[in-house]
Amino acid sequence: MKVGIVGASGYSGEVLVKLLLAHPQVTLAAVTSRTHAGKPLAAVIPALRGLDRGLKFVDSDPAALAAGDIGLFFLALPHGAAAVYAKALVAAGKRVIDLSADFRIRDLATYQKYYGEHHAPELISAARFVLPELTAPAWKTEAGLVAAPGCYPTSVLVPLVPLLRAGVIGREHIVVNSCSGVSGAGKKAEEMYLFVERAESIKAYGLTKHRHLAEMEEQLAHFSGAPIAIQFNPHLVPMRRGIATTITVPAAKPSIETLYDAWRTAYAGSPFVQLLPAGETPDTAHVVGTNRVDMSAVLDARTGNFVITSAEDNLMKGASGQAVQIMNLWCGFPETAGLV
Amino acid sequence: MKVGIVGASGYSGEVLVKLLLAHPQVTLAAVTSRTHAGKPLAAVIPALRGLDRGLKFVDSDPAALAAGDIGLFFLALPHGAAAVYAKALVAAGKRVIDLSADFRIRDLATYQKYYGEHHAPELISAARFVLPELTAPAWKTEAGLVAAPGCYPTSVLVPLVPLLRAGVIGREHIVVNSCSGVSGAGKKAEEMYLFVERAESIKAYGLTKHRHLAEMEEQLAHFSGAPIAIQFNPHLVPMRRGIATTITVPAAKPSIETLYDAWRTAYAGSPFVQLLPAGETPDTAHVVGTNRVDMSAVLDARTGNFVITSAEDNLMKGASGQAVQIMNLWCGFPETAGLV
Amino acid sequence: MKVGIVGASGYSGEVLVKLLLAHPQVTLAAVTSRTHAGKPLAAVIPALRGLDRGLKFVDSDPAALAAGDIGLFFLALPHGAAAVYAKALVAAGKRVIDLSADFRIRDLATYQKYYGEHHAPELISAARFVLPELTAPAWKTEAGLVAAPGCYPTSVLVPLVPLLRAGVIGREHIVVNSCSGVSGAGKKAEEMYLFVERAESIKAYGLTKHRHLAEMEEQLAHFSGAPIAIQFNPHLVPMRRGIATTITVPAAKPSIETLYDAWRTAYAGSPFVQLLPAGETPDTAHVVGTNRVDMSAVLDARTGNFVITSAEDNLMKGASGQAVQIMNLWCGFPETAGLV
Amino acid sequence: MKVGIVGASGYSGEVLVKLLLAHPQVTLAAVTSRTHAGKPLAAVIPALRGLDRGLKFVDSDPAALAAGDIGLFFLALPHGAAAVYAKALVAAGKRVIDLSADFRIRDLATYQKYYGEHHAPELISAARFVLPELTAPAWKTEAGLVAAPGCYPTSVLVPLVPLLRAGVIGREHIVVNSCSGVSGAGKKAEEMYLFVERAESIKAYGLTKHRHLAEMEEQLAHFSGAPIAIQFNPHLVPMRRGIATTITVPAAKPSIETLYDAWRTAYAGSPFVQLLPAGETPDTAHVVGTNRVDMSAVLDARTGNFVITSAEDNLMKGASGQAVQIMNLWCGFPETAGLV
Repeated sequence: MKVGIVGASGYSGEVLVKLLLAHPQVTLAAVTSRTHAGKPLAAVIPALRGLDRGLKFVDSDPAALAAGDIGLFFLALPHGAAAVYAKALVAAGKRVIDLSADFRIRDLATYQKYYGEHHAPELISAARFVLPELTAPAWKTEAGLVAAPGCYPTSVLVPLVPLLRAGVIGREHIVVNSCSGVSGAGKKAEEMYLFVERAESIKAYGLTKHRHLAEMEEQLAHFSGAPIAIQFNPHLVPMRRGIATTITVPAAKPSIETLYDAWRTAYAGSPFVQLLPAGETPDTAHVVGTNRVDMSAVLDARTGNFVITSAEDNLMKGASGQAVQIMNLWCGFPETAGLV
Repeated sequence: MKVGIVGASGYSGEVLVKLLLAHPQVTLAAVTSRTHAGKPLAAVIPALRGLDRGLKFVDSDPAALAAGDIGLFFLALPHGAAAVYAKALVAAGKRVIDLSADFRIRDLATYQKYYGEHHAPELISAARFVLPELTAPAWKTEAGLVAAPGCYPTSVLVPLVPLLRAGVIGREHIVVNSCSGVSGAGKKAEEMYLFVERAESIKAYGLTKHRHLAEMEEQLAHFSGAPIAIQFNPHLVPMRRGIATTITVPAAKPSIETLYDAWRTAYAGSPFVQLLPAGETPDTAHVVGTNRVDMSAVLDARTGNFVITSAEDNLMKGASGQAVQIMNLWCGFPETAGLV
Repeated sequence: MKVGIVGASGYSGEVLVKLLLAHPQVTLAAVTSRTHAGKPLAAVIPALRGLDRGLKFVDSDPAALAAGDIGLFFLALPHGAAAVYAKALVAAGKRVIDLSADFRIRDLATYQKYYGEHHAPELISAARFVLPELTAPAWKTEAGLVAAPGCYPTSVLVPLVPLLRAGVIGREHIVVNSCSGVSGAGKKAEEMYLFVERAESIKAYGLTKHRHLAEMEEQLAHFSGAPIAIQFNPHLVPMRRGIATTITVPAAKPSIETLYDAWRTAYAGSPFVQLLPAGETPDTAHVVGTNRVDMSAVLDARTGNFVITSAEDNLMKGASGQAVQIMNLWCGFPETAGLV
Repeated sequence: MKVGIVGASGYSGEVLVKLLLAHPQVTLAAVTSRTHAGKPLAAVIPALRGLDRGLKFVDSDPAALAAGDIGLFFLALPHGAAAVYAKALVAAGKRVIDLSADFRIRDLATYQKYYGEHHAPELISAARFVLPELTAPAWKTEAGLVAAPGCYPTSVLVPLVPLLRAGVIGREHIVVNSCSGVSGAGKKAEEMYLFVERAESIKAYGLTKHRHLAEMEEQLAHFSGAPIAIQFNPHLVPMRRGIATTITVPAAKPSIETLYDAWRTAYAGSPFVQLLPAGETPDTAHVVGTNRVDMSAVLDARTGNFVITSAEDNLMKGASGQAVQIMNLWCGFPETAGLV
């Protein structure tokens, strides 16, 4: 089966190229880039030297891609740009897995508030937000266009959704603190992301207004059946990859066993969710390079809160690994194909 | 004026040596170390090459120190050991500034729960916990023994205490997430603190039971007049120095101006507290090497929470810088002497 | 085909476990560890959570391993210990690939000078030092015991050997400067390797007497047919993995084309050697996680020197990846099996 | 005494501002910046919060600066721009210490080859290249314009010059490998200097043609009395500050004692040169924040080479600290004023 990637010059695009080149069930047939058209993949992604099978970047003309014989496309583009390609490709009957935010938000006004103009609003209702461990399997037959979740939202939704559904936690006073490696900001040549500025430095950013907040709250409401507001405090930390999320939430059922039971029930068959015993905490170093979410929780009898911790690779389970997992499920491949 | 340091082979001890060697009002007359007695300071602290004024580590016999002519001692020892020295030195009429936890906790049972046996419980009531910006100035004449605050507590008490006192924030649902550089763990040759383990890694640790929790809650209660329980979630991040703390707390008076007014009132004359405008967030890289706490806050109208952020150097304002600041005030030197 | 690993608690052992678990042609049937016997692999190597196929560490009794049905063993042990296992396993007809230094040095006196007592000197002459791209293929049938090259030597021999053989470079004034990530020192809980000591720090070490010097000079002499002495200056740099080597050597044939021709001839069919154009320099970040050596050279017309640069992952091409490559060739698998 | 800084938005400018604000003998009266004119220093250099004494950046008009009452200026500008200011300020009788390359190279053709057009060639002959430990003291009365040495050259000239003068080392086959922290590249928002690109990465760059090569060779020739060509191999390593240099050079007098004697003679009264015993190697972590060069050497009896290692802070002894040291000597202040 032939697959293509539209836009692959960023960090998640690079990881996606590697995953698809090594994937046992698919052939990476096209990688597009306006900037790099004509260059061998390895000229732009030196980690692929000797491994790019002679592939070159091609121009990223939506019409040409729509007319070709590639059946499934990954969009690794900035938001805004993705919608344009989705429109052309979906119209041509292609399957599309979008790694941008363009189809993650169902509410158009919310999208516009956080991201500005939407270039294909008519596609929103047909698109499916798919977090493979949580989204009901009907999407596999319904969808032509799948929105892969954002990095922070994955690290929050995986631990929280089963607990909300099972009534183990309350819906108020949910405080999410996340720390992300710098690749989460993308490959932007801005002073803020220079080595000298970020090494030996940690800081909070985007407080009360980070774009992923909209996605998290919409999905928490969707999965749990009622509106929900959370405090989301993201931080940049001096590492390349990885997200560690620490969630404080009042316990509704103050039993750590009940919490773990809810998780075990939800993730019994999920190869990419690993539960650590209460008292151990996940470490981003253990998940970078994998498609896993490691998570654990502890109950604080003094405060009545659960403290829940998760760790993932922002470029894998938080982006490209999850997109490949979605493809695997969509196409009937083993869920872990190309991911272990 | 002659001062001495008891125990200076750890990271905060090294910073303290540097500060006191360069201090305009005092002479560093003795630095003790069981392990290194007889060696030049620079042999153990290579950053001091050419700067150690010929000083050598001396043996750390409490009786000998008590009999000498040094008037003020800093204890840069592990908890437990500090109490032993404090006992001998205070009895001899020396001033003592203890950087350990031994005299930070007023409640003996709490101390024992977190730290084990106390070797000089009879001194606890006379000791003073001094956070210079917050502790009422009477300590300067009352005390013979001062407990310098811990690193995490400083980063939490400085922003929170004026807000609790002014009733700007509530007392429930206070969630503190802190990220510390690895020097916060001390100079311990353990696998967990190896470069390869900690680089490119972030993880939570000590959830619900970190030792500094006891100190923070006791002091928050002390300063605000009523018991208080907080959620304290510390994390290790891959940098050498610095603590960033992010606090989420429901607003009692939901006005960011009111919050900043309370801060401005409390810290009007404080050279080491810097308020950043709402919307800017402090960065540890900007405070490392200084004795400052930088802090800011923002009100989230959606959740009704304030999100408060602070940054400090764990070895300066969080340890040795603050100890020197205490000395300055105690001895009538300018507060900033040797610290800017 | 069943394979086993003796000793897998270090950094290269961990990488080897991952490679063999994912290898398409072999089954990792035993991983031994005195310390960890009885524990699941993932309990010691958390990166393997969900991926360890239920394997547990077993005790590392040489006799028991020799009596079992595993046909090929990797020894990921400290030098000295490896020889003991090699003796028992080779005697039982097992194939052995040793990642330690025990059988890299053919001259016993040299071994003893650098490493101390040898526990199986009688095996040295039958053992084969195999750098797959350079060692003549006869080893595949001759050997029962293969010594995999060291990390620094690989980064030096791959660029230099073809040039010495082709007479492109002189044999005098060869200066090798190498910079290694901290994992090269192994997983040792020593103060020198703490995060706080190594972050933001670079230093030379082991000047004139690093153990790998013996191996490099013996192999350079072996491959080029005459004794050779080099200056080898290793450095520790603040990163986890990777070695960058920069070699200055007077040109015998001062033509960069001649140099590249010698390389192209030597490595025409080598998937793991990548030549970068003169003027580009390899970057460790591009090879970490791969089994490649990237290399390039430039001629300095002013000095008459070639400056040659190489980069590799010390845990892959410098250790475990190369060991798997050796196994692949030995067992008739595709050379890249399990390595791309 | 009033001093000014022209151009202070880069990394060395920031360090220079801090040094001069804290200097006991001078008053920092003006800091110019086209981009930041009108902003408080601390708004651009957040590390100065509370410490900038109300200073604001002013516009950098050469004529206005020349007409003012400031007697000494530091130029912390890119090469090319510095010459323009030097012209105006020297003409007005101001003392000028230039941290750029504009007046480091005495040979105009060499300057042009490496840097392009020179904007004040008529000033070159009157300018003095001053490496305080090596330059004969006559410069203090002769000069109106001083060129402060570059970072790499300082780390090379300090160890080599006394050895060349004393005939301890030969003049051929000098191989210099240097590793620099990323601040050495300046504050440039380019992809190459992003955190994600540089963390966990080391690479050589600028081989055979780095601009500092011209300066080093001209000065080595100047100090030793005959032309000399060296191999200079610079590398970028993942740290913020610091340069470690490792020099391999054939011994002319193969005695380590003779080498150290030459150093001791040359640097007897130099507070900023520290000699480590043969066998110890300097570590950048021990010199960052200081104005020192730490250095040591070892003789390799096998090869007949000395291996010489030095470490410095590229922003201190390699730039701003050295510039302040020059000012101290020029103005008759203690050499270490404001630097320890």
